[in-house]
Amino acid sequence: MTQRVSLASLQRFIEEILASYDVLPEHASTVGERMLEADLRGQHGHGIFRLVSYTKRIEAGGYNLRPQIRRTTDRGPRALIDGDGGFGQVVMTEAVDVAVHKAKEFGMAWVGTRNSNHAGAGGVYASKALEHDLICLYMAIGNANHLPPWGGLDLLLSTNPIAIAIPAAEHPGLVLDIATTVASNGRIKVAADRGEQLPIGWLEDREGNPITDPTRLDEGLLLPIGGYKGYGLNLAVGALAGVLNGAAFGSEVIDFNKDFETPTNTGQALLMMEPDLFHSTDGFKAQIDERFHEMTAATAMPGRGPVRIPGDATPARATEMREHGVPIEPAVRARLRELAMQRDVEPGLLAE
Amino acid sequence: MTQRVSLASLQRFIEEILASYDVLPEHASTVGERMLEADLRGQHGHGIFRLVSYTKRIEAGGYNLRPQIRRTTDRGPRALIDGDGGFGQVVMTEAVDVAVHKAKEFGMAWVGTRNSNHAGAGGVYASKALEHDLICLYMAIGNANHLPPWGGLDLLLSTNPIAIAIPAAEHPGLVLDIATTVASNGRIKVAADRGEQLPIGWLEDREGNPITDPTRLDEGLLLPIGGYKGYGLNLAVGALAGVLNGAAFGSEVIDFNKDFETPTNTGQALLMMEPDLFHSTDGFKAQIDERFHEMTAATAMPGRGPVRIPGDATPARATEMREHGVPIEPAVRARLRELAMQRDVEPGLLAE
Repeated sequence: MTQRVSLASLQRFIEEILASYDVLPEHASTVGERMLEADLRGQHGHGIFRLVSYTKRIEAGGYNLRPQIRRTTDRGPRALIDGDGGFGQVVMTEAVDVAVHKAKEFGMAWVGTRNSNHAGAGGVYASKALEHDLICLYMAIGNANHLPPWGGLDLLLSTNPIAIAIPAAEHPGLVLDIATTVASNGRIKVAADRGEQLPIGWLEDREGNPITDPTRLDEGLLLPIGGYKGYGLNLAVGALAGVLNGAAFGSEVIDFNKDFETPTNTGQALLMMEPDLFHSTDGFKAQIDERFHEMTAATAMPGRGPVRIPGDATPARATEMREHGVPIEPAVRARLRELAMQRDVEPGLLAE
Repeated sequence: MTQRVSLASLQRFIEEILASYDVLPEHASTVGERMLEADLRGQHGHGIFRLVSYTKRIEAGGYNLRPQIRRTTDRGPRALIDGDGGFGQVVMTEAVDVAVHKAKEFGMAWVGTRNSNHAGAGGVYASKALEHDLICLYMAIGNANHLPPWGGLDLLLSTNPIAIAIPAAEHPGLVLDIATTVASNGRIKVAADRGEQLPIGWLEDREGNPITDPTRLDEGLLLPIGGYKGYGLNLAVGALAGVLNGAAFGSEVIDFNKDFETPTNTGQALLMMEPDLFHSTDGFKAQIDERFHEMTAATAMPGRGPVRIPGDATPARATEMREHGVPIEPAVRARLRELAMQRDVEPGLLAE
């Protein structure tokens, strides 16, 4: 049965597990916070679920546990942060901080990362901009190539996600967090677990025929959103979050599900901007409220409505989890309990 | 039969038609150049094809033929250009110029437009960045709402296109120019003309069932790329190219196919950036060549390959058209000839 565990217990648990590997306390705390923020956004695939694979990478030496994270380029509104192989969550937290300060100083900012690692959910970082009334665009190179370029068969591209945040006034603001593929491998595995068929357009075989049986994932190819359009967006993310930063892209990407040892040289990119180009910041936010309201007030399509704004359910969901705990599925709980035993860490509520 | 007409003849023709409406010579020349650049990119739907509808808008008073185009915001790397109801091509040409200069000065730039108009193909403007070795992201509010928000039925969104340009060295560079919908109304009309069926995923009815008969366009709803993902991107374009600039978005959008009189207050946005964040500019371009090369060298999917980089066929296509003329379809030629007669302009080669 899915158990609810308090945020504080989970944070303490992550910190103690990471401390057992001699991770710096301030890094352990940041990694825990960013992972649990993904859980609070409902993006459980980037939440505490990831802890076991992160520890595997620590054990294999794939992380630098004493990274010198520093700005190797700092030029007006732009900066490049070299994460020195540290935790992606720590590198990206620093990147957000730099981007916020630069956006406040210059009106806009671009901050790239290299020698970073998987940082979890893009929406976690993009949504930080909303606390500062900033617009944000986030891009990242995914850590496993499951997608061929459009028209090809070789797996040279990852899900390369894009996240966007737009501040609003009464409305909680837009936080879009999407892969540039229609579905992720993870989502297809969930369908297989549940015995569901896949909709046409998620997966196809090497002749381009639709695959609707999710257990055939291994013979299938993911599809980019809108065919060549999503492929083009994916390539652009590769150029902007990868090549621009001197980070891995294409055949340079290390598959973090198979190779736990080689530094991934993951790249991420953040654009942040003040929304006061025409309106005042408050005026912009009020206008966004109006435009979003007319969307959500639209006549619903039976069976698909009502209209939502991406991310609008997050605040209520987070509040509920803060009050009642984060849901931990039995399989995840079992893996976390096993990890606790190995590391001689008190599993706390996870043991119940 | 499709006729080939030289670029110089078409440019002169557009200038003479616009002069007959007392359009300023420098504006007529810019409008002609940007339209024909769309033709040279193979985006004929934004080329000389549009001239007749532009003249309809001139006649109805929807354009300001003596606009005071000015920067109403100019703050470090950011600017807002008020187009004062002038031609979109003229406003966007000014916006590109400002963005290039600011990107060279600050390393990056954001330039928005308001009180602009339909400017044609986004790829035309994004690709200007390549001449200056700059990265570009372009977004625009489309001028007719044919898309409901995801889950709804009311037509509140346009195709809101995105264009991206990434400079390369030997490779001509990526120029992606996409609507955030799977197909455009125009593309579906072409299918109807040709008697083709539509693939599933282009159009659906108000219950969410696929429509494959293109003649049923009027009862259909366009689909965003990747379902809610493309809807989210579409909304973000609305916020960044519309609301941010004080330009029309959502129910504020004027349908330029039905209302030729009301100023459209169209908004566009440009991000331009130097590619020298980690590598030198030349180093970046060389790296992009390598990554693009491994994509195009990928094993082709039978019937769908070879792999292409968006926009890579454009230079050869443009060279061919510069040499042999721009193809003008009979229906377009007939409309242009009729326009010439009405305006007492010499149709030149279009008469043959």
